[in-house]
Amino acid sequence: MNSTNVKALVFDTWGTVVDWRSSVLDELRELKKSKNAAFEPEEFLREWNAAYNPGKEKVNSGEWPWTQVSTMYWRALNDLLAKYGLSGMTPDEVDRLNRAWTRTRPWPDSQSGLSRLKQKYVLSTLSNGDFAWLVDIAKFGGLPFDCIITAENARRYKPDPSVYLTAIELLGRAPHEVMMVAAHNYDLRAARKLGLRTAFIPRPLEYGPQQTSDLVAENDWDVIAHDMGDLAAQMGAA
Amino acid sequence: MNSTNVKALVFDTWGTVVDWRSSVLDELRELKKSKNAAFEPEEFLREWNAAYNPGKEKVNSGEWPWTQVSTMYWRALNDLLAKYGLSGMTPDEVDRLNRAWTRTRPWPDSQSGLSRLKQKYVLSTLSNGDFAWLVDIAKFGGLPFDCIITAENARRYKPDPSVYLTAIELLGRAPHEVMMVAAHNYDLRAARKLGLRTAFIPRPLEYGPQQTSDLVAENDWDVIAHDMGDLAAQMGAA
Repeated sequence: MNSTNVKALVFDTWGTVVDWRSSVLDELRELKKSKNAAFEPEEFLREWNAAYNPGKEKVNSGEWPWTQVSTMYWRALNDLLAKYGLSGMTPDEVDRLNRAWTRTRPWPDSQSGLSRLKQKYVLSTLSNGDFAWLVDIAKFGGLPFDCIITAENARRYKPDPSVYLTAIELLGRAPHEVMMVAAHNYDLRAARKLGLRTAFIPRPLEYGPQQTSDLVAENDWDVIAHDMGDLAAQMGAA
Repeated sequence: MNSTNVKALVFDTWGTVVDWRSSVLDELRELKKSKNAAFEPEEFLREWNAAYNPGKEKVNSGEWPWTQVSTMYWRALNDLLAKYGLSGMTPDEVDRLNRAWTRTRPWPDSQSGLSRLKQKYVLSTLSNGDFAWLVDIAKFGGLPFDCIITAENARRYKPDPSVYLTAIELLGRAPHEVMMVAAHNYDLRAARKLGLRTAFIPRPLEYGPQQTSDLVAENDWDVIAHDMGDLAAQMGAA
């Protein structure tokens, strides 16, 4: 295992550490009920989340100036509320609903695995989410990160190299001393190109029972772990 | 008390949260003993710490490019080791000694006060130290910050406005929702000018028994607390 000398682990968060889908779905089901609305929560969520990939690509290509994920979701949410006849919600209600993305339950193994890893390593997020949102996600989930680093610190989105390089620089480490942990192969490919160590944890239910992507490690990542506890064990964290 | 609506507290760290002086002094006394060296630890520390203020002013004025505090201390340490006949230390030994600034004991009230405040507020550092050093300081002291923000995120030093503005932006808050907590009046003056709330905690022994500065609040700060527990009480944290 090519993980000697690792000092810090940086974690993709949505999907890898927290189960955003079932958490946000619960809030959409609640919304549907309380507003007696006519939308299908899973479809609403699919359409909502579809704002994310094109938005981050537009930022990385320079087509858009720096734009937070919260803003992308907020714009898409307003469109969807209009589409489904819910445009009467107050700005505060919309803002609160948009923050459903921060009220995300950790996967059952995340908290205990991170707590074990924290005894031996520096733990940071390395997410595409807003810095403030990641603070909220960590607080909501009781996730014991030592610090928060996100795309916002680089004003570019993963997989842009600047995001990983910003993390390395802030952590004061050489690339091979930092391990990227993710449930997404594209994230690890970008990290490995820059010399970071890599750990894959499959999250086959991130997108629900019909998920087809990222079910398995697509490269020989330094660590392939079945969950966060297994990662802790493989990294020698008691 | 002008602290309604505060959502996040940002803490100066060296001096306000941790007792850097007695911690670094202990290591210098240890060094003197182990190397049988002829220096006076308190004088060595005074000379060492004297690198910091001119360095940060040179960065803020643009005379120097961005330079981390760790680098300022490392340069000064090498000079002092030469001056006191200790230039034979290995680079690793020098680096380890330089990091004495991260092995700093929290003041006795810091950990419990922060733990109480954390239940109600987002807690961040807002220090002039390196980002990586603040991670280490928090880890060493078991300090339950939700995130680390430092001058390095702005590439300018307090009291430059950009440092406080960077914190507000990353925290996603309006200035009046963020409270700067410091044992240094200059820090609070700069924060107040930008609309942040302010809390003063005197640390009359930060510079040792002969300290003459920052013994009292020099302005009508929103909160004046005698220690971190008192701050928690005044901020309504159980």
